[in-house]
Amino acid sequence: MTSGARAGEPMADTFHAGHKDLTETRLDGEAVYDGVLLHVRRDTVRVPNGQQAIREYVDHPGAVMIIPILDSGELLMERQYRYPLGRELLELPAGKIDPGEATLATAKRELREETGYVAGEWRFVTTMHPLCAYSTERIEVWLAKRLAHEGRALDDGEFLETLPVPLATAIEWVRVGRISDAKTIIGVLWAEKILAGAWPEPPAS
Amino acid sequence: MTSGARAGEPMADTFHAGHKDLTETRLDGEAVYDGVLLHVRRDTVRVPNGQQAIREYVDHPGAVMIIPILDSGELLMERQYRYPLGRELLELPAGKIDPGEATLATAKRELREETGYVAGEWRFVTTMHPLCAYSTERIEVWLAKRLAHEGRALDDGEFLETLPVPLATAIEWVRVGRISDAKTIIGVLWAEKILAGAWPEPPAS
Repeated sequence: MTSGARAGEPMADTFHAGHKDLTETRLDGEAVYDGVLLHVRRDTVRVPNGQQAIREYVDHPGAVMIIPILDSGELLMERQYRYPLGRELLELPAGKIDPGEATLATAKRELREETGYVAGEWRFVTTMHPLCAYSTERIEVWLAKRLAHEGRALDDGEFLETLPVPLATAIEWVRVGRISDAKTIIGVLWAEKILAGAWPEPPAS
Repeated sequence: MTSGARAGEPMADTFHAGHKDLTETRLDGEAVYDGVLLHVRRDTVRVPNGQQAIREYVDHPGAVMIIPILDSGELLMERQYRYPLGRELLELPAGKIDPGEATLATAKRELREETGYVAGEWRFVTTMHPLCAYSTERIEVWLAKRLAHEGRALDDGEFLETLPVPLATAIEWVRVGRISDAKTIIGVLWAEKILAGAWPEPPAS
């Protein structure tokens, strides 16, 4: 897996070497909640001063986010009710990785299911960690271009609406807090970097 | 609270009006895990098609993140071992809001505890939602300038090291995936917007 290797590798030489070892070692652990979608673990760990501490976290299979850029230059976004926040958010399409699924396959599947679009061009952007304090989740970000609409097929119990948003509008909505979903803020600002030519476009997959 | 009102208010007129109502209504619910730091709830909700669904999520008091800019122009960052990911991450300082605490007070407290710095200038930046799918957490982002070192006081069981990072280096580390923590990516790209003058500096508090 490209991204996992890349995300894990460069830390050591950059700011690890010569510094204090901050590693926490697992001593014991158990699943404390096995829900429909959420799985929570509690581990006992040894911390750097030799004492023990409790670490509680969500065990997550990972997710993808897609930055879909329409031929018009607009971003294809979604509005979705987010129950934990009690409100709608404006987001880029995203979804969980199925067991054994390659992240590009997840990206293609989620884009099609949620928005009805298929893409003629896919580029891997980055791997991010949305909540490192209490979730194992990583989000693999893919850029999708040359989009064609073929009809969507939402998961049972999934309700959302799609809307095209001009890049400049999306950037302004980030600035004023109208786009507040962290992964989506990153997707919008990353799209600007690439589309403005400040950062090179990642290679096509 | 400035930020909460601002984040919640502008949604309606922007992309809610005239569109399908996606609201999910709580029917029933319970705490399913009450841990040392993590609290998980499971609610039964009515979804837009009239059926019922389960929503599981972490109930979180909210957090702050600080973007500390040293007089040298460098960002003050931290490396910290993140047990759920089994590795160190490079992050901007952040921490949980205590019950009843104003977010600026949290920001001042966390900056002092984690880095030993106090700031002569504070500016509210934005509110973001790191994981809207399964956490109520919001992160209030503050910019801190005119920093002076007075000595840190880490929480018991908290282990981290601080390091100054030039803005250009931090931006490059975002691009290559060396900075992968979502809140920190946003903090770095937001700092660039403000310091480059692309976005106006928020008013001082």
